[in-house]
Amino acid sequence: MGSGRKIRVEEQILSANDALAAQVRAQLGAAGVFAVNLMASPGGGKTSLILRTVEALKGELRLAAVDGDVVPVDVEKIAAQGIPVELINTGGNCHLDANMMLGVLPRLDLSRIDLLIVENVGNLICPASFDLGTDASAVIASVPEGDDKPYKYPTMYRGADVLLLNKIDYLAMQEFDVDYFQRGVEALNDGVAFFPVSCRTGEGLDAWYDWLRERVRQKKAEAVSAAR
Amino acid sequence: MGSGRKIRVEEQILSANDALAAQVRAQLGAAGVFAVNLMASPGGGKTSLILRTVEALKGELRLAAVDGDVVPVDVEKIAAQGIPVELINTGGNCHLDANMMLGVLPRLDLSRIDLLIVENVGNLICPASFDLGTDASAVIASVPEGDDKPYKYPTMYRGADVLLLNKIDYLAMQEFDVDYFQRGVEALNDGVAFFPVSCRTGEGLDAWYDWLRERVRQKKAEAVSAAR
Repeated sequence: MGSGRKIRVEEQILSANDALAAQVRAQLGAAGVFAVNLMASPGGGKTSLILRTVEALKGELRLAAVDGDVVPVDVEKIAAQGIPVELINTGGNCHLDANMMLGVLPRLDLSRIDLLIVENVGNLICPASFDLGTDASAVIASVPEGDDKPYKYPTMYRGADVLLLNKIDYLAMQEFDVDYFQRGVEALNDGVAFFPVSCRTGEGLDAWYDWLRERVRQKKAEAVSAAR
Repeated sequence: MGSGRKIRVEEQILSANDALAAQVRAQLGAAGVFAVNLMASPGGGKTSLILRTVEALKGELRLAAVDGDVVPVDVEKIAAQGIPVELINTGGNCHLDANMMLGVLPRLDLSRIDLLIVENVGNLICPASFDLGTDASAVIASVPEGDDKPYKYPTMYRGADVLLLNKIDYLAMQEFDVDYFQRGVEALNDGVAFFPVSCRTGEGLDAWYDWLRERVRQKKAEAVSAAR
């Protein structure tokens, strides 16, 4: 297969995905659900961040989660927090796509959800190319991965609306130049919200919760305004 | 596209890849080059392991490297060690394949190489499905990623010939149940060589170097025997 044909096939797949993402976006918009697509390397802290967020916000917001995974290890941990959670088993596929999201939405009661967190597959490459119809993309970097990740995975960092630098409790353990990391991020994406956090100690997470609260509030206001 | 057709297309892609991998394997075999496909999450320690290995073995073996990356950050670090290194720019693709390997081999003088280390793209999913024509698959896990990774990325762990658990100097910092990790590995792959290491401190790396020495020696012996 020549590279020209390969590129055209990829464009067709992404264009079909965009059409399905628009359908997801319309359903979430009508219900006023704020949805965030959470992406990271394997072990970056997606599940830990979800567990912390549910613990902090479940008293004030109605949360639900979608867990995309090759094997359903995390879904049970999230369900144990007492929120609705649906598994998308990607069957070995390395990212979620909008068609998978469309398939899972009917299993959730959107009228009873304020914040939907979608845990993508642990991968810094493929998930960046597939719009899921969510409102925002959140990327988790983690200190042990090293400070060069924005330079090596630019597509993922370019598309982020919010960037969490997790495991900051490891900063004392290893060389990690936060300025170098941030310069790499800013060169790609100077509007990103940036929160250094530790899901283990809880440090820095209040800023992330406030960001979510504000975005959920805005989404509700938009839905009410559109329904008038 | 129905899932039946999707599976057939995937089978065709993998079957075409296998045919090209056989060509890579034949070229490496004729030259007696032992090649290892090095896979890990982003930030797991692929480049650090290569730099350590080159430093330890370059006085006794003729080494070369192939660096598969979206952006050529690592290739310069490896080249600074004074060994031949060729970049495969995957153009955003999330794994190497045998066709990329076939393209890069003519740029290497195989008659002057004992050990070829191929640094795959940082990803625990897609690289596991593509045979590159190398002799062995080495997977690096790292302690900060967590002890559940064999359970979550079974295909990658099932195909490994050697597994390095890197960043063991972090074991004191966090909960990581080495027995749980190893039970997960053994359930998938009970013949894998397992080396706990720290690329930062150097701990445990001698066992990995010995494993490489022995495999390089075997490969040379096979090439001599076949040439008789």
